[in-house]
Amino acid sequence: MGTDRGPEEMVAGAVQAVTESALEVVLFGDKNILTPLVKSRPEFGIGRLRIVHTTEVVGMAESPIDAIRRKRDSSIVVAFEYLSRGEVDAVVSAGNSGATMAAALRSLGRLPGVSRPGIASVFPTLKKPVVMMDVGANVDCRPRHLFQFGIMAAAFSEVILDVERPRVGVLSIGEEQGKGNSLVKKTDDLFRQSSLNYVGNTEGGEVFRGDVDVVVCDGFVGNVCLKISEGLAEALTGLLRIEINKSPLAKVGYFLARGAFTNFKKRIDYAEYGGAPLLGLKGTGIVCHGRSNAKAIKNAIFVAGSLVQNKVNDRIVELLSRHEIILADENDGLERASSGAA
Amino acid sequence: MGTDRGPEEMVAGAVQAVTESALEVVLFGDKNILTPLVKSRPEFGIGRLRIVHTTEVVGMAESPIDAIRRKRDSSIVVAFEYLSRGEVDAVVSAGNSGATMAAALRSLGRLPGVSRPGIASVFPTLKKPVVMMDVGANVDCRPRHLFQFGIMAAAFSEVILDVERPRVGVLSIGEEQGKGNSLVKKTDDLFRQSSLNYVGNTEGGEVFRGDVDVVVCDGFVGNVCLKISEGLAEALTGLLRIEINKSPLAKVGYFLARGAFTNFKKRIDYAEYGGAPLLGLKGTGIVCHGRSNAKAIKNAIFVAGSLVQNKVNDRIVELLSRHEIILADENDGLERASSGAA
Repeated sequence: MGTDRGPEEMVAGAVQAVTESALEVVLFGDKNILTPLVKSRPEFGIGRLRIVHTTEVVGMAESPIDAIRRKRDSSIVVAFEYLSRGEVDAVVSAGNSGATMAAALRSLGRLPGVSRPGIASVFPTLKKPVVMMDVGANVDCRPRHLFQFGIMAAAFSEVILDVERPRVGVLSIGEEQGKGNSLVKKTDDLFRQSSLNYVGNTEGGEVFRGDVDVVVCDGFVGNVCLKISEGLAEALTGLLRIEINKSPLAKVGYFLARGAFTNFKKRIDYAEYGGAPLLGLKGTGIVCHGRSNAKAIKNAIFVAGSLVQNKVNDRIVELLSRHEIILADENDGLERASSGAA
Repeated sequence: MGTDRGPEEMVAGAVQAVTESALEVVLFGDKNILTPLVKSRPEFGIGRLRIVHTTEVVGMAESPIDAIRRKRDSSIVVAFEYLSRGEVDAVVSAGNSGATMAAALRSLGRLPGVSRPGIASVFPTLKKPVVMMDVGANVDCRPRHLFQFGIMAAAFSEVILDVERPRVGVLSIGEEQGKGNSLVKKTDDLFRQSSLNYVGNTEGGEVFRGDVDVVVCDGFVGNVCLKISEGLAEALTGLLRIEINKSPLAKVGYFLARGAFTNFKKRIDYAEYGGAPLLGLKGTGIVCHGRSNAKAIKNAIFVAGSLVQNKVNDRIVELLSRHEIILADENDGLERASSGAA
């Protein structure tokens, strides 16, 4: 209910998902708005598209913790309660991402061995997509948190992107060991003791080259990277459009090359990648961009289905337990979780 | 001497600079390599292009502090010694940026009121260029450092980019006050007490939109942003090239539109912006991309000249002294400077 584009895109995405797969989708929200949008669909008649009525909405600018505490009957809170009772298998949200994470954490709790769940994001590259984690849930992190992000993202890369022994790098400001801030240096120590396919520091410039499969960073740096990349991609296509519109000849050229531009846009379109999984929870959640269109929602539903079917959480628990000893040594204690990103 | 492309590009840039302006340029490096490159130039005969012979070279991968301590006769160390004695007015380097900053700091020292000098970088946007600081000199920062970066970058924006009352934002993960990590939140408190044109938090996505003139961040985050932006721009143009090459029609289209593409490349070409100024030093230094071509070097020389002629350092000292009281209250002490970026 609380997305930027309103429930129409969510419903359209859900309809596409049930049409193109055998999945069942439950829509949480105001039935007076949702029912007219789905009642003519045959899948609604046979129950593959259901509605659970909720009366409250968490807005994009609301404080996450506060909102989920006050709005017990909001779509996001109720959806995760359904998940915690096993009435649904996964939740997809395009609303307030901080509130989504907070509701998920309260209803589901953490997987054994996870200090802090986080948000992973899949970026297109010149080669295979790369998984970056965390991209916004944890803004002040300790080395143990970054280490766990690496393990969780590696499990995702294996299970969902079919990467064998994913190459894991820590985002830093130089490739050489010892370059970086104190958090990165201490995190590097932990990864070097692990059995992961750890490649050391990764520079920002390498992320989109596709030479690593997993990029580890704290949620502040990850969120800035995510947003700056989106902003730059928009600015570059905007600048190119301005230059092309200046000349009639260039416009003709663009017209002839438009197929290439369409394919290009498809390759960099976040909608193809279907949202960002919340990893580290006892359950499956996906948070989508607030401006997600129907296609992005459909793909997010498919990714959610795949996370459940391929048991990514089992793999996370297994990989974490295998590395317990490293974190037992690194005794820095746990602090309270920090507030999430917008 | 220690650049990625070798001294030829540096010399070519210096030659272009003296040809297109009344500036004098001194080349620091091995005279046996440099002399053949310049001796046929008329400017060499009349002394507007000089060579100071140095025997050592600091490599890109060397530890900055260590390198400048051991290599007393390296081009970068000698150049800043000349600057500290007033024999040159500014230094431009495309070598190891950490070593450049370390040599500058040792030879020149800090301006009054500056806790830590930093590196600013100018980014193209849809509107006016934006200045981001710090982009790599200080990886672990305190609020007072970020506050000073904002003041120094604002002075640069005023003096070099002709912006009246530059809008200053702190890079964070949401626009609302209170979003961000603990460093950002405490920095926000300082800026709110200042007389700067402070606009609050700036999200990564806004940087390239051009709605702020100065973006403040620590050197770790800034360096990651710089590198990820370069990497993404390369990846996007690479992907576009792949798509265009797939279809003969698209190739014809590209040929017709090539003027627009050339203008587009010019607008996003870092070479147009001439390197990143080191701000906060008693003197003027510019560090260029290791892969800088002659044009980038020429533009960096022009920016260096402009920084000196327009007395940006006087403006920095003036702005800092006006805000002394804010930092006097914020008593968090100073730590040792952290190691610079590659």
